[in-house]
Amino acid sequence: MSKFWSPAINQLTPYVPGEQPKVDNLIKLNTNENPYPPSPQVEEAIRNYPIERLRLYCDPDATALKQSLANHFQLEYNNVFVGNGSDEVLALAFMAFFRQDLPLLLPETTYSFYDVYCHLYDIDYRQIPLNDKFEIDFADYNQPNGGIIFANPNAPTGRLTTLEQIETLLQSNRDSLVIVDEAYIDFGGHSAVELTRTYDNVLVIQTFSKSRSLAGLRIGFALGHEDLIAGLERVKNSFNSYPLDSIAIIGAVAALEDNDYFEETTQKIIDCREWTTTQLEQLGFDVVPSKTNFVFTRHSSLSGAELMSYLRSNNLLVRHFGKPGIENHLRITIGTPEEMNTLIETLKLHPKI
Amino acid sequence: MSKFWSPAINQLTPYVPGEQPKVDNLIKLNTNENPYPPSPQVEEAIRNYPIERLRLYCDPDATALKQSLANHFQLEYNNVFVGNGSDEVLALAFMAFFRQDLPLLLPETTYSFYDVYCHLYDIDYRQIPLNDKFEIDFADYNQPNGGIIFANPNAPTGRLTTLEQIETLLQSNRDSLVIVDEAYIDFGGHSAVELTRTYDNVLVIQTFSKSRSLAGLRIGFALGHEDLIAGLERVKNSFNSYPLDSIAIIGAVAALEDNDYFEETTQKIIDCREWTTTQLEQLGFDVVPSKTNFVFTRHSSLSGAELMSYLRSNNLLVRHFGKPGIENHLRITIGTPEEMNTLIETLKLHPKI
Repeated sequence: MSKFWSPAINQLTPYVPGEQPKVDNLIKLNTNENPYPPSPQVEEAIRNYPIERLRLYCDPDATALKQSLANHFQLEYNNVFVGNGSDEVLALAFMAFFRQDLPLLLPETTYSFYDVYCHLYDIDYRQIPLNDKFEIDFADYNQPNGGIIFANPNAPTGRLTTLEQIETLLQSNRDSLVIVDEAYIDFGGHSAVELTRTYDNVLVIQTFSKSRSLAGLRIGFALGHEDLIAGLERVKNSFNSYPLDSIAIIGAVAALEDNDYFEETTQKIIDCREWTTTQLEQLGFDVVPSKTNFVFTRHSSLSGAELMSYLRSNNLLVRHFGKPGIENHLRITIGTPEEMNTLIETLKLHPKI
Repeated sequence: MSKFWSPAINQLTPYVPGEQPKVDNLIKLNTNENPYPPSPQVEEAIRNYPIERLRLYCDPDATALKQSLANHFQLEYNNVFVGNGSDEVLALAFMAFFRQDLPLLLPETTYSFYDVYCHLYDIDYRQIPLNDKFEIDFADYNQPNGGIIFANPNAPTGRLTTLEQIETLLQSNRDSLVIVDEAYIDFGGHSAVELTRTYDNVLVIQTFSKSRSLAGLRIGFALGHEDLIAGLERVKNSFNSYPLDSIAIIGAVAALEDNDYFEETTQKIIDCREWTTTQLEQLGFDVVPSKTNFVFTRHSSLSGAELMSYLRSNNLLVRHFGKPGIENHLRITIGTPEEMNTLIETLKLHPKI
């Protein structure tokens, strides 16, 4: 704390991302990274990039990437917004759309950056509990609101909401914006992007960090009605003109172009998730049905903290949130088949499992 | 405009960066980029970066870069903050420090993103005219304030404020924060970084976009008392955990390590600026004394708009702001000696010069 801080800064509780360990011998299943490298086309694009051009500013509009995304999703150029990871896209979207008189509605258990943004912008919000199957029940969202946000599939639960449920939600909230954060949609869900063609009150946000194996390059994007995109551009251009550097732009374009690689690696992760789920269940774990690249799971004989600590002592890093209601759950990223086999074999060695 | 926008968004007037033309045959003297490529060590670092690691998140704290900067400036690690270009560092700093009851003071003619941030965060501000030599006169800043910001050297004038003047300003503003934006300091100025060791009310912001030839990689940083850095970290970690990607981090570290290259290229630009100034004066131009990589100049026989348009038609791109008081000035980036020779020869061909 300092007398020079803006008074509002004292109330912030910053987001704490999952650990990025500085040692190499850990099996890292804690931040939902893709176990496979980016497409070889990304490597080729970066290797061929003329480094001398870095003396020049990047394209502030990332035109090449927006156009690639528009083509990929069969949208128009002005339906696409890009940012420095989906976190930045979310941060700008909260500023652009959710500073309203009525409260923002969001699940009580979801991506924990959402309420950090609410504090940052002094947005009133209501957290609505999941049902006892960890599902979002939109019947509970039938109340006056200044916007709605949720992740689909949700995190850290892995649960998918159907497009039909989302469409019903859009129909009953014609005057407020619904943001669907689809960070994990490529691992078995069906994107709400098709609803952006019909509804002006839905914004879909995705990322290159998970299914495109580019967490280290920071690329996120939003898709929606051109008036929503125009609002995001206004805020972005009042904050930072060039959030995506030249190498991020060409890397993302290359990743998007290699659809075969994308489908092959996401399928491998889906298959491995199903194998891991079966194995965990055979060891007495409860596993929430997941459509993501992670599983949310607990074991009746062990607390979440005990499990995490046991795995860490065996060089397996997983995520434990320790919040009321989910304090005994772990979120475990799906790695390679070899990594998940090591996880299962390590769990089998625990005396209480 | 859209009913889904936060009401405050309607009042924004986004910053418009200088044009990044999509054709290659222009001599680009409009956005103060460095005419020399980044250090060969940057190229080597990026060529050797293991692209498969991009599947992992980057280090959210950019530890390697902060430590390099701390070493370079002989500061402690916790005196250093890094961000996605100095624009993002500035945006976060305005949020962290300048949302105060009293107005922010800034020069009327300076980097035009500052008042954009004021609108973004609803910060009250007062713009104080430069004197008739385009100098900042700090006597005019002797009034109650919630902070002071200026660029040193100032842009688009190129004028340098001395360290003695800044120290006097710090002494008479013990209770408010002074931000010195040193984007151009390496082209002949003396950094206020040494004042950060003695004064807790000064924050120095610099960039890799100008003197380090890395505009396309987006790296900026702030140096100051650890309490100021802690305030910036709180805001940054409430906005976006990972604004610098893995390649930007290693590229910046490599650039900082090659001090010989840095000194050689900045000296070439300084020499070329002095040559260009002399040549322009011989053609009847008024040139404001510059300590930057650009000159701010006008000609008595031609309007700024006419001059810009004439140069553009000869494939020379310069910046014209067209604001009252500077409507006849052009800001011309210092390029290579060959480029500046082309500029001078082109100007000589104008019938009114």
